[in-house]
Amino acid sequence: MDRLAIAEVRLTPVLVADPPLLNTQGVHQPYTPRLIVEVVTRGGVTGLGETYGDTAYLDLARPLADALVGRTVTDLNALPALAARVCGDPPAATGADAVDAGGLRGVRTADKLRLSVLSGFEVACLDAWGRATGLPVHALLGGKVRDRVAYGAYLFYRWQAHPAGRGESDDWGAALDPSGIVAQARRFADRYGFTSFKLKGGVFPPAQEIAAIRALAAAFPGRTLRLDPNGAWSVPTSLQVAHELRDVLEYLEDPASGTARMAEVAAGTPLPLATNMCVTTFEEIPEAFARGAVQVVLCDHHYWGGLRATRELAAVCRTFGIGLAMHSNTHLGISLAAMTHVAATVPHLDHACDTHYPWQTEDVLTERLAFRDGRLDVGDAPGLGVDLDRDRLAALHRRWREDDGTYRSRDDAAAMRVAEPGWVAPAVPRW
Amino acid sequence: MDRLAIAEVRLTPVLVADPPLLNTQGVHQPYTPRLIVEVVTRGGVTGLGETYGDTAYLDLARPLADALVGRTVTDLNALPALAARVCGDPPAATGADAVDAGGLRGVRTADKLRLSVLSGFEVACLDAWGRATGLPVHALLGGKVRDRVAYGAYLFYRWQAHPAGRGESDDWGAALDPSGIVAQARRFADRYGFTSFKLKGGVFPPAQEIAAIRALAAAFPGRTLRLDPNGAWSVPTSLQVAHELRDVLEYLEDPASGTARMAEVAAGTPLPLATNMCVTTFEEIPEAFARGAVQVVLCDHHYWGGLRATRELAAVCRTFGIGLAMHSNTHLGISLAAMTHVAATVPHLDHACDTHYPWQTEDVLTERLAFRDGRLDVGDAPGLGVDLDRDRLAALHRRWREDDGTYRSRDDAAAMRVAEPGWVAPAVPRW
Repeated sequence: MDRLAIAEVRLTPVLVADPPLLNTQGVHQPYTPRLIVEVVTRGGVTGLGETYGDTAYLDLARPLADALVGRTVTDLNALPALAARVCGDPPAATGADAVDAGGLRGVRTADKLRLSVLSGFEVACLDAWGRATGLPVHALLGGKVRDRVAYGAYLFYRWQAHPAGRGESDDWGAALDPSGIVAQARRFADRYGFTSFKLKGGVFPPAQEIAAIRALAAAFPGRTLRLDPNGAWSVPTSLQVAHELRDVLEYLEDPASGTARMAEVAAGTPLPLATNMCVTTFEEIPEAFARGAVQVVLCDHHYWGGLRATRELAAVCRTFGIGLAMHSNTHLGISLAAMTHVAATVPHLDHACDTHYPWQTEDVLTERLAFRDGRLDVGDAPGLGVDLDRDRLAALHRRWREDDGTYRSRDDAAAMRVAEPGWVAPAVPRW
Repeated sequence: MDRLAIAEVRLTPVLVADPPLLNTQGVHQPYTPRLIVEVVTRGGVTGLGETYGDTAYLDLARPLADALVGRTVTDLNALPALAARVCGDPPAATGADAVDAGGLRGVRTADKLRLSVLSGFEVACLDAWGRATGLPVHALLGGKVRDRVAYGAYLFYRWQAHPAGRGESDDWGAALDPSGIVAQARRFADRYGFTSFKLKGGVFPPAQEIAAIRALAAAFPGRTLRLDPNGAWSVPTSLQVAHELRDVLEYLEDPASGTARMAEVAAGTPLPLATNMCVTTFEEIPEAFARGAVQVVLCDHHYWGGLRATRELAAVCRTFGIGLAMHSNTHLGISLAAMTHVAATVPHLDHACDTHYPWQTEDVLTERLAFRDGRLDVGDAPGLGVDLDRDRLAALHRRWREDDGTYRSRDDAAAMRVAEPGWVAPAVPRW
C-alpha cells in the first residue's frame, strides 16, 4: 500500500468568471472562488479534487492538507474525525452568518464546513486511487449502474452584464421575463440537448415566475420543469404556486424556508417538494423525514462530505422512500466529473441532476466535459478521467492572488449593491 | 480492468459440525450447511466468500454464479438487480415458512433470500479485488477506523452431546442451569479473553434465565451482559425481565416478536432493545425507527446484502441515532474475516460483535482466526487475509454430498424431535 501513501497535497484557490445570475439573495459576483486540490502519491500519481473556495473553507483546508501527508488515499472513513481534530472549529456563525452564502447552502455549522472541505480531499484521493490501480472512480464506488447521467438546464433570470463594467462578458443576453427565460431554455436545449429545465426563482413576485414556467411549458410541452425560489415564499404563497403549477412541475424546490414551513407546504399539495436547503446534513434528516417535509433530497456532494457520503445519503433516502437528485453550486469540471461518477452508481437516482457548468466558460481542465442529449457519458478511464491544464490553473490562481478580497468569499448581496446601493438580502418569507 | 473480470465462479456447499446448542425453536443440528464461494478472475486471482448453505439458498446461487462470469469484481452496485433478474423468486413462503430457519433470521422474503446469496458473491468479489490490487478489504470499504474488533462470548444452554449418538463430540459439557452457564462463560473468558457475554435465552422459563444472568453478573462484575430469547416472550414478560435485569444488561435482544410488541416493550423500559429479527431488511426500518421499537440493530451482513450494504445500514442507523452491532449465525472463518473487515470501518460500532465461531471446531481455512483479549486484529494483508485449505473444503463438501438431505437445510425443530418426539417449534409468545 506504500505506493498509495500521500507524499504531497497541493491547494490552489482560484477565481472563476461567473455571469450576473440573479437569485433571491442578490446576484452572482463576477468571479467566484473555488479550491483545486491535488493529492500526490508516493507512487507519483496525482489525484484531483475541487470544493468551495471561500476563505472560511481555505482556512480549514490548509491544516487538513498537512495532516494528510503520510496517510493512504484509501483511508477515507477516518477523514471526518481527522478533520475535526486538525481543522478546529471555524469562527462561530451567528445571525446572518448562521446560513451559508446568503442562505443558499442551508444551515451553516462547523461540521458542515469541515465536510465541505473534506469532500475535495476525498475526491482527490479517489481519483489518485483510481489512477494508481487503473480503475474509474465509479468502480471504486461499487460500479456504475448506468452509462450516461442526465443533467438539466439551469435557467436564471440574469442581466446582460455585470454592473459597473465589472467581470467578463458573454453573449447570452439578459433574461428578465418569460420570453427571455424561454429563449435561454431554447439555447440550452439546442446546444446541450437538455430536456429538463429548472428556473431559479425567488427573484420576482411569484406571479411573474409562474408566468415564466407557463411559458416554458408552452414552449417545451411534456418536458420536465422545476422552480426553485430558495425558500423565499410564505406557506400560503408556496401553496398557491404549487396549486397553479401542479400540472407542469416535476417538483417544487425549497418553496419555503425551514422544516416546519416545508412540512406545512408538503401537507397541502400533492406536488413533491425537493430541497437543498432544508435537508443539507444527516442531522437534519430525522425530523424532516418524520414530518414529511421533503420528497426529494438534492445532494451536493461537497457539503454532504464527499462521494461516499453521497452514497450513504442515497441509502438513507432509498430506505425511507425519498427521492434523490443532485444540487449544484457554481463548479468546474472536476466536480462535474465527480458528480457524474457518483450519480452513475446510485440505482434510484431518477431525476436529472442540476449543474451550473454551462454557465462557466472557464475551467482548469485540458478538455471540457461535453453534454450530449442532456447527458454526460460515464467514462471508464482511470480515476475521474479528467486532466488538469496547469496554465489555466495558474491563470485562475493568479486572479485569486491579485484580488483584494472583494471576490474571495461569495457574497451575492454585495454584488447586488453595486447595482442597487443599500440592498440587503431580503428576509424570508419575502412573498 | 480486464484482469478483474470474472473467469469462473465455484460453489462448494459444505456441512459443518455444530454442537447441540439450544434455542427457543429447538436445538442446532449436528451439522449445518454453509456455501463457500470462489470467484476466479482472468488475472488468476481467487476471492473467497461464504454464506448460508441451505438448499433454498443454493438454488439461487447457481444461476447467479453463472451470470457473474464475464463481469468485473468491482461491479457490485448492479448485483441486486442482476440477482433479481437471474435468480427468480424462491418458492412462495407462507405460514411457518414465512420466517426463516424457524424464525431466527426474521422475516423471509424473496429479496432477503437473494441478498443473502448475493452477499457471498460480494465478499468473494471484494476479496479478489483486494488480492489483485494489494489492498485489504477494509481499504476497499474506505479504510479501518480501528485496529482490533471486539467480539463477545456467545453462551448457549446446551446438551453434552447430540441425542442418538449423532454428530461430533466435544469437551464443553452440558450447560443447563446458572452454574453451567457461568462455567461456560469462564472458559470463553479464559480461552479467548472475551469480556462481553451474551446468553441465548428463550429456552427455559424466564425466571431461570434471569437467574443465569444474575449468576453471570456475580461472577463477572462490571462485564457487559446481554440476553436474547429470540422473541419468545410476551410484552408483560419482556417488561418484567427488563425491569429485573435493568442494572446488569447492556441491552435486551429481541425479547418479543414483531415491531408492534418490540415498540410496546421499548416504551416501557429504559433498557435499550437490540434486534436481528424485527429489523432485518431496509424495508422494515422506517416503521421500527418511527415507533422507537429498537435502539440497536444487529447486522448480519449475509442477509443485509453484503459488506457495502452493512455500511449503508450503519449510515442509516447513525443518522437516526440507532446503535449498530453484528449478529452471528453459525459461520466459518471466511465470514468472520468479512465481519471483522467491515466492522473495522464503521466509526459508531460501539458494541462487541456476536460470533458463533468458537463453537465451530471445523473450518475451511489453512489457519483459524485467533481471538486475543476478546478481539480480532484487523489485518492489512490483501483481500480478507485468509486462505482456503482445499483438503478441508473437500472433506466438508464430501459430508454434504453424502448427506441424504437430513442436514442440508437448517431445522432446529427436527433436531429437537430426535430427543423429544412430537416437538414442534413453540408459538410465540411462549412465556
